[in-house]
Amino acid sequence: MPYRAPVADLRYILDNVSSFALVQNTERFSDATPDMVDAILEGAGRICEEVLAPLRRTGDLQPARLENGVVRTSDGFKDAFGQLAEGGWIALSAGQEHGGMGLPITITTAFNEMAASTCMSLGLCPLLTQGQVEALEHHASDEIKEIYLPKLISGEWTGTMNLTEPQAGSDVGALTTRAEPEGDGSYRISGQKIYITFGDHDFTENVCHLVLARLPGAPAGTKGISLFMVPKFIPDENGNPGVANALKVVSLEHKMGIHGSPTAVMQYDGATGWLVGEENKGMAAMFTMMNNARLAVGAQGVGCAEGAYQHALAYAQERKQMGRIIEHADVRRMLLTMKAETFAARAIALNCAVAIDMETATHDPEWKARAALLTPIAKAFATDIGCEVSSIGIQIHGGMGFIEETGAAQFLRDARITPIYEGTNGIQAMDLVGRKMMDGGEAAFRLLDEIEAHAEQVRGDMPELAEPVWQASETLREAVEWLVAQSDMRTRFAGSVPFLRAFARVLGGHYHLRAALAEQGEGARTKLARFYIARLLPEHAALLSHAMAGADDLFSVSEDELAA
Amino acid sequence: MPYRAPVADLRYILDNVSSFALVQNTERFSDATPDMVDAILEGAGRICEEVLAPLRRTGDLQPARLENGVVRTSDGFKDAFGQLAEGGWIALSAGQEHGGMGLPITITTAFNEMAASTCMSLGLCPLLTQGQVEALEHHASDEIKEIYLPKLISGEWTGTMNLTEPQAGSDVGALTTRAEPEGDGSYRISGQKIYITFGDHDFTENVCHLVLARLPGAPAGTKGISLFMVPKFIPDENGNPGVANALKVVSLEHKMGIHGSPTAVMQYDGATGWLVGEENKGMAAMFTMMNNARLAVGAQGVGCAEGAYQHALAYAQERKQMGRIIEHADVRRMLLTMKAETFAARAIALNCAVAIDMETATHDPEWKARAALLTPIAKAFATDIGCEVSSIGIQIHGGMGFIEETGAAQFLRDARITPIYEGTNGIQAMDLVGRKMMDGGEAAFRLLDEIEAHAEQVRGDMPELAEPVWQASETLREAVEWLVAQSDMRTRFAGSVPFLRAFARVLGGHYHLRAALAEQGEGARTKLARFYIARLLPEHAALLSHAMAGADDLFSVSEDELAA
Repeated sequence: MPYRAPVADLRYILDNVSSFALVQNTERFSDATPDMVDAILEGAGRICEEVLAPLRRTGDLQPARLENGVVRTSDGFKDAFGQLAEGGWIALSAGQEHGGMGLPITITTAFNEMAASTCMSLGLCPLLTQGQVEALEHHASDEIKEIYLPKLISGEWTGTMNLTEPQAGSDVGALTTRAEPEGDGSYRISGQKIYITFGDHDFTENVCHLVLARLPGAPAGTKGISLFMVPKFIPDENGNPGVANALKVVSLEHKMGIHGSPTAVMQYDGATGWLVGEENKGMAAMFTMMNNARLAVGAQGVGCAEGAYQHALAYAQERKQMGRIIEHADVRRMLLTMKAETFAARAIALNCAVAIDMETATHDPEWKARAALLTPIAKAFATDIGCEVSSIGIQIHGGMGFIEETGAAQFLRDARITPIYEGTNGIQAMDLVGRKMMDGGEAAFRLLDEIEAHAEQVRGDMPELAEPVWQASETLREAVEWLVAQSDMRTRFAGSVPFLRAFARVLGGHYHLRAALAEQGEGARTKLARFYIARLLPEHAALLSHAMAGADDLFSVSEDELAA
Repeated sequence: MPYRAPVADLRYILDNVSSFALVQNTERFSDATPDMVDAILEGAGRICEEVLAPLRRTGDLQPARLENGVVRTSDGFKDAFGQLAEGGWIALSAGQEHGGMGLPITITTAFNEMAASTCMSLGLCPLLTQGQVEALEHHASDEIKEIYLPKLISGEWTGTMNLTEPQAGSDVGALTTRAEPEGDGSYRISGQKIYITFGDHDFTENVCHLVLARLPGAPAGTKGISLFMVPKFIPDENGNPGVANALKVVSLEHKMGIHGSPTAVMQYDGATGWLVGEENKGMAAMFTMMNNARLAVGAQGVGCAEGAYQHALAYAQERKQMGRIIEHADVRRMLLTMKAETFAARAIALNCAVAIDMETATHDPEWKARAALLTPIAKAFATDIGCEVSSIGIQIHGGMGFIEETGAAQFLRDARITPIYEGTNGIQAMDLVGRKMMDGGEAAFRLLDEIEAHAEQVRGDMPELAEPVWQASETLREAVEWLVAQSDMRTRFAGSVPFLRAFARVLGGHYHLRAALAEQGEGARTKLARFYIARLLPEHAALLSHAMAGADDLFSVSEDELAA
């Protein structure tokens, strides 16, 4: 099933449904001219269409495997990774001083989406490497930067994140991996890490692990965690891979999806590592990496949705049951739901990326707050939509959707990890109603002000579209007011997931409205906006009553009653 | 992960949230005394816990396979099927004249749910056999009944349904399999059928196929379809399997889930068959089989939900991340959503079953209409809930949910077929707003009258629960009034899926309210009802505005615009 990169839609959102022009006008991103952006998006689309798309099914059928301690990847993966590296696609946003292109994260987000539509399992390797590059740029010593960044950015080496341990998942502070100082500036790292994406592979001659561990006598919890660079092969004096480090892949997981991506259990037995950032400040460094990784995972959600949509649309155009099934009202309802939701998720992800770029370029605290507010929404909403849209895609295929050969089921199996990793969507929602509302809702209110001002401005031209968006924003405003007045965090957390989704619903309405307005006249985007606003936006009201239901009922039920 | 059969909940619904007592008071089902029902439910629970549950994972890991034309099933399946047959569990509701127990379909529904919670793939074999028994009881000649029914009911032989062909899925009328009369009362059947569940296996010495085919000169479409019994081995004069028939399994599908259940492509090359029912009336006979199969698939949805819930609850009680995760508000919200939805789906399925039993026992047209109304709702809502609850179960497991070893992912992979087979949920919804509203909404209004009368009666005791249910029912009533006034079927179909879900939402509120009332005092059921009514029921309003949005917007979008 051929994939066509949605370059036109990406560009439309950048031009009309986001403040990307502001990013392009900053000195920091002045290289990202419209022509440059066009060329990059076209090129990204092409490599995803031509190189990654053919590997989607291969990776599913030929899972990465561990053979005599070495990970072997699916046929074609190594070559495709080489092409990504050669084309400069590994770390588009990495700084120019170490060989990166210094492009806005917005462009990387578009690339990540397209990679996820075509071969999400392979795309994870550059994605993790991007995160490692960013963490090193912000926190590593110059010496580490000089050794690692050029190799990571060029794709000669790749990077991983090592947070989770069997007893320490969402509760990172519970980790027990130890780091003993050697006295020569290096450390000996010992412990076991799980869920290490591309913990090993046969793409490159080195794999660089960023590992969270505890120094002797470090405080308990997250305040006693430090970050270490622990390479598979220790670089020699010329920066080339030297002796093998004391680390190994113990096993690979057998997963529901992304079979082509090796998920490793890593064992560190006194492996040599070097501190990245300050002692006991590892969480701060890791958060640099994780924050943008959250947006990147959100982009994967969009990518799964887009891939599933194109796949289902092609089937609906071809399959005949009492005429082509695309002529059936319910199939159209499903297709339009897929398309409208994908657009909303894509617009949220790109607007989040723009806010991050504006923060990077201007250090404006308002952009910083906007980025912080949108990141959990982009991650959670887009990944939920990735799963939901993939599941609708299966449904459109009927019985064929359940047969693996068709490829429809793989979208859901692959997508299903995205609401879980990089912080479960429950964690994202807690972040939204907790940390991100510590400003008393200021950042949220500022965004709602913009939404309502826009709706008021459009009201004359498109009353039937603008009015519901304005109303929904007002209802959301009341919920934010209620939320920030709750000092009991359990009360906030009890409705955090429906609150996040309601917020995304309203944002989706706003972005659809902006897309319709920019079209000037009744075209495809106005029709899609009408569909979304009439059929999907109304969901916000029930979600917000759920969000404000409080925690008492949840905790009134005993465990015996739950088990009864 | 040990499964505990929800016998108490099933019994509570039968006693307090349905009219099962009326069934027990009929002459037809007078054997189904309370003691008898207790014993059957306990026994069914026990065999599912002890015999089926251990095979869930085995079936997933060892898919059925085709070896030299013969299907080999997963380890332990044959033995387990033998135990089901020996215990009389294959066809509980089959008539006593051929060795069945003649029990209400309500009891079979409870069994089907528990089988799906424990080993859905194996449970499909008795489920299909139940359907065949019913079709034969209603439509077959006495000769065919004598030969086949005792063997099917005892589990010596098993049955399949052969409807689908590559070009004829939802559009059954497009099928092309041919039946040529031999002149001796038999026919030669030729054609290919796909998606044949347990089309072959190694459980029993014969497999009996009910095959839809066309006689020479038959009218086009569904009015030219006849039904034939085509056994794998032709019974000899003593009714024992004799010569092999001209049919074979061409291949087995590689599916997303239910790996233990062989899904066959069947080839009939002039196979010998006998007419079941009248010529060209095959669809009527098939509908007998399909209608109850729809309820049975709904029960599978409930079973997947219950299994996933128990699995996730056990994990949440054990897993520690900043305390046991069951103490986190969002995990509780997820668990209570799972439990409240499972209860709603179970109550709808059992009330549908009770209506079928009352129709069978009394031939009362009101019960018939009630059964007809509830069947598509039970099928579609319960199977959607099966998928949604299974997906929440994965989420509660965090990263472990994506690792197949845990078993959480299998619930979703298995459940994902249920919204598709036995008529996709889109077809169910079209049936609801189309055929089932041909009475001008009479059956729906009668049900809403009951819901509102009950809410009014309860209003004094439980105003905060009764009032929203009454209001939701009124909103649904308005939507039914709108719906039956639409003569353009496309307008009805455009919102049929959200309409069906809204109907189920309101029914769920009603059944939760009944459960709470019967409890007399604030206990687990009242708390669960409060959760459902406060947090889930409000969804009906947005669903109904979606349901009444009409079809114009769906068809205003061109295919080029969909592909843009």
